[in-house]
Amino acid sequence: MTEIYLPELPRLLPVAYHPKAAQLEFRSNGWVRRLLGGCFMREEDLFYFLRQRNGMYGPLTVPDADERRALDVTDWYQYVTVIDSAVSDGSALGADESDAREVFAGIMNDFHGGPGGSEQFPYARAGKELWRRISSGLSSAQIRRFADALEVFLRGCATEIGFKLKDRVPDYETCMAVRMNSFGCDFIRLMTEYAAEVDMTAHDSLLTDVHTHGMRQMIIVNDLLSWRKEHAQGDKMTLVRVLIERRGLGLQQSVDQLCRLVEHHEKAYLAARDRLLDGPHGSHPDLRHYLRGLDHVIGGSQEFEYLTPRYFGDGYVWDGSTSGWISLTAPVTRFRPHSGHDPDADASLTVGAGRPAPSMTRS
Amino acid sequence: MTEIYLPELPRLLPVAYHPKAAQLEFRSNGWVRRLLGGCFMREEDLFYFLRQRNGMYGPLTVPDADERRALDVTDWYQYVTVIDSAVSDGSALGADESDAREVFAGIMNDFHGGPGGSEQFPYARAGKELWRRISSGLSSAQIRRFADALEVFLRGCATEIGFKLKDRVPDYETCMAVRMNSFGCDFIRLMTEYAAEVDMTAHDSLLTDVHTHGMRQMIIVNDLLSWRKEHAQGDKMTLVRVLIERRGLGLQQSVDQLCRLVEHHEKAYLAARDRLLDGPHGSHPDLRHYLRGLDHVIGGSQEFEYLTPRYFGDGYVWDGSTSGWISLTAPVTRFRPHSGHDPDADASLTVGAGRPAPSMTRS
Repeated sequence: MTEIYLPELPRLLPVAYHPKAAQLEFRSNGWVRRLLGGCFMREEDLFYFLRQRNGMYGPLTVPDADERRALDVTDWYQYVTVIDSAVSDGSALGADESDAREVFAGIMNDFHGGPGGSEQFPYARAGKELWRRISSGLSSAQIRRFADALEVFLRGCATEIGFKLKDRVPDYETCMAVRMNSFGCDFIRLMTEYAAEVDMTAHDSLLTDVHTHGMRQMIIVNDLLSWRKEHAQGDKMTLVRVLIERRGLGLQQSVDQLCRLVEHHEKAYLAARDRLLDGPHGSHPDLRHYLRGLDHVIGGSQEFEYLTPRYFGDGYVWDGSTSGWISLTAPVTRFRPHSGHDPDADASLTVGAGRPAPSMTRS
Repeated sequence: MTEIYLPELPRLLPVAYHPKAAQLEFRSNGWVRRLLGGCFMREEDLFYFLRQRNGMYGPLTVPDADERRALDVTDWYQYVTVIDSAVSDGSALGADESDAREVFAGIMNDFHGGPGGSEQFPYARAGKELWRRISSGLSSAQIRRFADALEVFLRGCATEIGFKLKDRVPDYETCMAVRMNSFGCDFIRLMTEYAAEVDMTAHDSLLTDVHTHGMRQMIIVNDLLSWRKEHAQGDKMTLVRVLIERRGLGLQQSVDQLCRLVEHHEKAYLAARDRLLDGPHGSHPDLRHYLRGLDHVIGGSQEFEYLTPRYFGDGYVWDGSTSGWISLTAPVTRFRPHSGHDPDADASLTVGAGRPAPSMTRS
């Protein structure tokens, strides 16, 4: 059995759940079924997706938002996670980079209200429905950024497909740059603004340091906590693999190095945030509100990644633990206090065991 | 495929989730693992239990409670659901009525602080830990009622085992009386008082009508929504079976009749509650607070029963629907808008399919 040990991460940022987190998740699941059900080959695959509890990402990252906006954000993150899942699936969008780029071009065409349109396809129809809801709460500058952000995200997804199919592992900075796109950093910023009901477009240059360190922290934490899944799917665009294959580290050394980088970027984020708060713009209520939102995005994203069966195996249920040994081979794992194979714990885990990866239809 | 159609139920009572519902569920899952992990044969069986989301019953039934009390209530309901699951399992407590009564006597002995004690057994150890936490917030009269309530619940469970093993179906009033016990109606009242920080012991006679109709509504709704599970487990102590086998109704007729009874008792509860609120005791803040709590217990219990994979099959995820056709034979079902077999929807559902029922150890 291959295992890694994940130490406690610093977790210096607040973790908050939207007070209607549970209801938002259920309502958003209903939206996924209605608008995106057609993206899944079988109902089983839709249930498999919903069991990952992706509908908790919104409530955890915009805990202070007005309920309607929180639901819009929750649906949005489910939407891009459906796309991300299809990209990771070699029998769906992940099968071919240029086919994927064509589907993505159709989505963008619809976003821009282009002629023809692919409204018969669920990705495009659901995207348009979200677009209509969310754009009514954005400035025209934000609307332009939103379309650009989606395009950048889809480009990042397509680039990941290419690396995976060509069996290439990028260097650290290339990986980080692609991950900034495929993790959706631009629309994460926009969702944070939308939830906080502020427009940070004009303050972009002020925010360079908080964004750089905040987003790097989020991506490294994600790559650590999603390693089981990415490893199983042969993903190339993950920092754990980059440190192993491009820098010659062992698996645990790579994990430990990334844990140090999480601490570095988390502290650098806090320092940059505090410089802003203490600086000449620090009394600006919109800026303060936005920075509070970023805190929650970073803290909430990490909390989500501990709780999701997407990373720990279909059938997993979180019990609040955040550190320990994780099996890379058991169909369902959890943080265990001790290393070593536990036959009672792993061998008998049949939920999700041996079941084929869910297939997603292209659309 | 055998199906039933569940129409929309009245749902005249408020449904509220505790603002920390999600966190309470995760924390309580950690408590179940630590204190009750030993009640499950394998870790898989613990995960199977946790996937039922029984940790949402507390947050849905005491949404206004102080966070600490809400957690105590959440742990309590998980505790009794672990017992209930073992009782339904013919390879665990459900195998033999007198063995079960012996285990239950051990639990009660510990509750009463009797000599010897069975603290090495997880049921008893977990019960004692909860008892310590909860009893510190109860009056001495409530503490006595709490021990009696647990005893009555365990007696109800044992009686259910006996009926099941002897293949006997009770008449309606016998079934309702046993279900009042095995559903835990007495400790539901106590948990409601504990959450509301009130003592209703002296007002018992005032509350007869609200309790009778409120609890009957809850039991009938439970028997409707749990019918898939009870049917699969050959349970005898359920009102659906009683109407079929003792009153000669067809399956759908039985469901429809119980739906009418839900409406009757729900309206009778509301009328009795309003009479109290408008009557001479209606200005008593503790009474008003308690009645508000009862509203939430009734509304929240029903909401839980729509969302739990315990009733719809391991692998189910709720999408907010509350009416439709339910398959009794598909391993995972949901409310569907149309009748009839949908091979895409049912046949391919492999999560939970064919896996053995989880086994629980006796303790």
